[in-house]
Amino acid sequence: MHLPPPPERSFASDNAAGAHPAVLEAVSRANHGHALAYGDDRWTRECEAAFRDLFGDVATLLTFNGTGANVLALSTLLGPVDAVVCVDGAHIAADEAGASERILGAKLIDLPAPDGKLRPEQIEDVAARLLGPEHHAQPAVVSITQSTELGTVYTADEVAAICDTAHRLGMTVHVDGARIANATAALGGSESVLRSFTVDAGVDVLTFGGTKNGLLGGEAVVFLDPARARRAPYLRKQVTQLASKMRFVAAQFLALLADGLWLQLAEHSNAMAGRLHAATAGLAGVELGGPPQVNSLFPVLEPALATAVQEWSFFWPWDPGRSQFRWMTAWDTTEADVEGFAAGVGAAATAPGAAAVAST
Amino acid sequence: MHLPPPPERSFASDNAAGAHPAVLEAVSRANHGHALAYGDDRWTRECEAAFRDLFGDVATLLTFNGTGANVLALSTLLGPVDAVVCVDGAHIAADEAGASERILGAKLIDLPAPDGKLRPEQIEDVAARLLGPEHHAQPAVVSITQSTELGTVYTADEVAAICDTAHRLGMTVHVDGARIANATAALGGSESVLRSFTVDAGVDVLTFGGTKNGLLGGEAVVFLDPARARRAPYLRKQVTQLASKMRFVAAQFLALLADGLWLQLAEHSNAMAGRLHAATAGLAGVELGGPPQVNSLFPVLEPALATAVQEWSFFWPWDPGRSQFRWMTAWDTTEADVEGFAAGVGAAATAPGAAAVAST
Amino acid sequence: MHLPPPPERSFASDNAAGAHPAVLEAVSRANHGHALAYGDDRWTRECEAAFRDLFGDVATLLTFNGTGANVLALSTLLGPVDAVVCVDGAHIAADEAGASERILGAKLIDLPAPDGKLRPEQIEDVAARLLGPEHHAQPAVVSITQSTELGTVYTADEVAAICDTAHRLGMTVHVDGARIANATAALGGSESVLRSFTVDAGVDVLTFGGTKNGLLGGEAVVFLDPARARRAPYLRKQVTQLASKMRFVAAQFLALLADGLWLQLAEHSNAMAGRLHAATAGLAGVELGGPPQVNSLFPVLEPALATAVQEWSFFWPWDPGRSQFRWMTAWDTTEADVEGFAAGVGAAATAPGAAAVAST
Amino acid sequence: MHLPPPPERSFASDNAAGAHPAVLEAVSRANHGHALAYGDDRWTRECEAAFRDLFGDVATLLTFNGTGANVLALSTLLGPVDAVVCVDGAHIAADEAGASERILGAKLIDLPAPDGKLRPEQIEDVAARLLGPEHHAQPAVVSITQSTELGTVYTADEVAAICDTAHRLGMTVHVDGARIANATAALGGSESVLRSFTVDAGVDVLTFGGTKNGLLGGEAVVFLDPARARRAPYLRKQVTQLASKMRFVAAQFLALLADGLWLQLAEHSNAMAGRLHAATAGLAGVELGGPPQVNSLFPVLEPALATAVQEWSFFWPWDPGRSQFRWMTAWDTTEADVEGFAAGVGAAATAPGAAAVAST
Repeated sequence: MHLPPPPERSFASDNAAGAHPAVLEAVSRANHGHALAYGDDRWTRECEAAFRDLFGDVATLLTFNGTGANVLALSTLLGPVDAVVCVDGAHIAADEAGASERILGAKLIDLPAPDGKLRPEQIEDVAARLLGPEHHAQPAVVSITQSTELGTVYTADEVAAICDTAHRLGMTVHVDGARIANATAALGGSESVLRSFTVDAGVDVLTFGGTKNGLLGGEAVVFLDPARARRAPYLRKQVTQLASKMRFVAAQFLALLADGLWLQLAEHSNAMAGRLHAATAGLAGVELGGPPQVNSLFPVLEPALATAVQEWSFFWPWDPGRSQFRWMTAWDTTEADVEGFAAGVGAAATAPGAAAVAST
Repeated sequence: MHLPPPPERSFASDNAAGAHPAVLEAVSRANHGHALAYGDDRWTRECEAAFRDLFGDVATLLTFNGTGANVLALSTLLGPVDAVVCVDGAHIAADEAGASERILGAKLIDLPAPDGKLRPEQIEDVAARLLGPEHHAQPAVVSITQSTELGTVYTADEVAAICDTAHRLGMTVHVDGARIANATAALGGSESVLRSFTVDAGVDVLTFGGTKNGLLGGEAVVFLDPARARRAPYLRKQVTQLASKMRFVAAQFLALLADGLWLQLAEHSNAMAGRLHAATAGLAGVELGGPPQVNSLFPVLEPALATAVQEWSFFWPWDPGRSQFRWMTAWDTTEADVEGFAAGVGAAATAPGAAAVAST
Repeated sequence: MHLPPPPERSFASDNAAGAHPAVLEAVSRANHGHALAYGDDRWTRECEAAFRDLFGDVATLLTFNGTGANVLALSTLLGPVDAVVCVDGAHIAADEAGASERILGAKLIDLPAPDGKLRPEQIEDVAARLLGPEHHAQPAVVSITQSTELGTVYTADEVAAICDTAHRLGMTVHVDGARIANATAALGGSESVLRSFTVDAGVDVLTFGGTKNGLLGGEAVVFLDPARARRAPYLRKQVTQLASKMRFVAAQFLALLADGLWLQLAEHSNAMAGRLHAATAGLAGVELGGPPQVNSLFPVLEPALATAVQEWSFFWPWDPGRSQFRWMTAWDTTEADVEGFAAGVGAAATAPGAAAVAST
Repeated sequence: MHLPPPPERSFASDNAAGAHPAVLEAVSRANHGHALAYGDDRWTRECEAAFRDLFGDVATLLTFNGTGANVLALSTLLGPVDAVVCVDGAHIAADEAGASERILGAKLIDLPAPDGKLRPEQIEDVAARLLGPEHHAQPAVVSITQSTELGTVYTADEVAAICDTAHRLGMTVHVDGARIANATAALGGSESVLRSFTVDAGVDVLTFGGTKNGLLGGEAVVFLDPARARRAPYLRKQVTQLASKMRFVAAQFLALLADGLWLQLAEHSNAMAGRLHAATAGLAGVELGGPPQVNSLFPVLEPALATAVQEWSFFWPWDPGRSQFRWMTAWDTTEADVEGFAAGVGAAATAPGAAAVAST
């Protein structure tokens, strides 16, 4: 099979991208002289202020990675015997190696969600079944991911409905925002949009992703009610997420939050996914759903086609039973990458070998 | 009181220093194109090889920080009902906010150690008291810090004696090497010296510090018996220490391990502490012990003198009850910093105000 | 509504029954003089021997209750990052207040099971999805309940198929045997039947229920491979399940295991459930499935009927959404109890008030 | 060596004693008909009332054993990152196999206490060292044992001083009362004495021991501020301490609390220890301290003497390094037991063989 040269950047994950130049420059600039460790420095103070500019009167703590951010956020919401309600594909339930169970001792009640989104009725149902008797871990926190692990996006109204339901039942709401910038871009792309589905909707604590959006590495835990952050500094240390040289995490976020870079990068990433969808939608052996909301596609591919393309430019399987895969764009994906990749998929799809294998 | 300008870099901590230029350059160079996340990249492979060059046939996993590295290392050594034997000033016991108890569920048996060093007899005694009956958490891991939290250094023979005792009693040995480079420098400063008190001495797992020695942030967990690392990748994820963009941690370590930079930086840091000792040893109101082994001094200061100097160039208290403080040098401390700081201490010590307060 | 006098013993739960007279007598006989605590006594030795008579070369540890027995059993099978595969109605998942998550730090992967029974294919599927990548807690233990929470019973072949699948995938098998006697009775009622679905089928560790079968309180954890019990005494102490005056737990079990009393009581209890089924099967407003395998019925009742009967002789709701309830017999349920209860249900079912309410 | 017949009851432990006849009778009487499980029964209600009669407006939850009672009590007082301050010989620190660390994830800060008693100054010192910085687990609960593991007793004033110090520092106070009856007897022997060192002194939560004072098995957790018990029913289930057939635990306590039996048994036990002290105080090879406060002696014995007597009538070593042992009386120790044991010690002490060995 003859394929064009693979794209310079693969479509494996937004985690595979590097750091934006402005982020690296900010780290370099912060690398001057001494600064007290553990966040007692001016970059961290400025970063906290930048998050207040974004969300209002909030408390923000920086962490290394998404699992750490989620564990820290949940640790401030959970009492003993408390359980977390989430969907079965939630990162905290499926992709954090049991961190919440091990570190927090918490049960995760994971509910089916074909589109990755939790419904208020599911929360009601869990509450009706479990709240009360001493024999059940008590549902206390609702955790949703925005945008979801399946590339869908909750509207502000949907988040508000979840928050209303949760609060009425005495529960709090956590948002895993590893890709919160992509969700913001999808919903209109402004700071007020961001606020509409977070602070305005009634979310209690969220994580604000940086790693997948152009940082070397770093996530923020934002307590929309700063009173909830009272024990958070201790908990961050205990769950191993306190950086010694915090200024270098803070400086990265300062670059990302300056001049709306976070939103521009997410808009670009989303746009590239849309372009990829358009460029591959009609190809033989490629089944796509509708246009993507954020920066991921979940194509069902002819197995032989998939193998051929993966060998040429790697991407991950998603649901092997259905021959479903994931294509993901990043802040640095170029139009040339998209065109090159689509061209390769097209060439592989029409190659005799692929067809031959696919038809057996 | 009239004092000279403070030194450009304080003596608060080696954590207050920034990153070495070679480290930043390595990060920049690694920031090119895409690389698979979670360590499936060539920088991480090269970094693992670099640690094998240093230690032999070992398995190495990178983490974000020292608490994370210690928790990961201990998690691979501990079974249920197992306890860790350490000194009462051990970082894991005193300065990690109970991470081992919370995340690992492990009891830490912390023993008195005026010089920060555990003795084989203490291990024997703990074993005699506790091994056996089902009522006691079972001592299973000995954890020592090299160099210690008090700036002392175990000789290779001392580590070997601890390992022999531990192994004879069915226990394993963990070394918290947050400042392992400083210890290596103090003991002679070569790779063979490093091996003499680690792999040759019988240590099972160690952490190799990078953050305090010129990195932006990063620590390595080195399994001297690679079989012990079998479950470590899972555990690293679970304890929140798996970096998405691992190449940027690996690249930092590659720079540090290249051409012995790790050892040069530690030697310099140690030398600056020695120079600071010499420059302040005779000053009024300053009681120092003997010359430092590594990069920290623990002076007992006249309270008024301490306050005056802290306001001028900050450093941390150590044991307030004794009016003891800590001065710490870093990889980037200059001779001018030392001379400037010593001059300030000297000026404060002889100032009329200080004397007046100190004599009351 | 005019109802006959309620039965002397309700149908709320086998937990509501008291202790068999032989059990109380055994406790009285053991209450003579002093005996060393924590199981270092002759009753405990004899009890261990009695379990060896039943199962072969096994190690047995006694505990206070079922949750404790399950936690102890699982603690010996689970390493860090390990997960338990079970059904969503499993007692460990639904009715132990998150004990496994809190005490063991383990994720429970709970799968749908309309009849309460796990299928080998479900284990295969979980393994295919999760075994391998470091991002997932690793399925390591399969836990099934025999008889199940829904009153169904695994055949020996079904258990063997689960064990074969689990072992082939590197997993172990735990049986929650809170009602193992009822299952044994249902499958034929002999010691060889008991062995056929436990030791012969390949089960690794089981709990052997006593509390629901005539004890004051007590459960046994039986390690069918005694090597797995190596750390169990420590773990029992740690998870708070070591009795000081163990002789009184052991003496109860000795009475239960003597002369097949455990099996007679379970056979009686099962028989009473069968009789209750027969006596209520045709009543208006009562929907029963087929005859019970063990000692529980899960009738769907007209709501007004249910309320009327519950007020007269209490029993628990099971699935309120379906108006499903649970009737449960015990070792001491009499034929008169069954007839009296059935008479009351019948009277309530035909009373004008009930019909009136039910028809609204 | 010729020794008289050993006493019918050994001096190994108060755990080695059986149950008081009134306790067994109460269990028998409660074994009539059905009662709802998990404490929803009249015996449990009466037992709660009996504890209110003793302490005032308190909430009481029954558990199986002392470790379980301590874990439950502490679980209601501890938040995340909280630590417990206790003495190094505290049962929770030394003899519960790390249950608090494993189940609660809590650090225990265990302080030296030659007489088994914590001092307010020690609490002050810990608070001064640790309260505040995010790097330290935060001391939040003070746990003392009354009577202590060393047979000493806190006066009401001493407990009040500890409570005042703890509360002033924002901490709460837990009393491990496994032998609270013996302490009450030692301090005067009345209900008002009991209140003087508990509710009147400011204790927050205590455990009230039954097992060592004539029960088959059972301990109570008494929340002197019932608001603290809000989550306790859930926590009791989660930490595996919820009895199915609770009536049988409650009935035991009802017997113990009726007509002051708990105090009579403890007074008797203490008196027998006093008599044993008097009967052995002058014997060769036996070093006793002053008369015992409660029901234990810690004699230092000539090794050969100890061995000879242990073989004849077993008791446990305490501190082998000092050849120290423990003799313990129980609620059922008779004067004849004391005289017989003392006679044996005396005979062994003067036997030629013992002397010969002892003099080498």
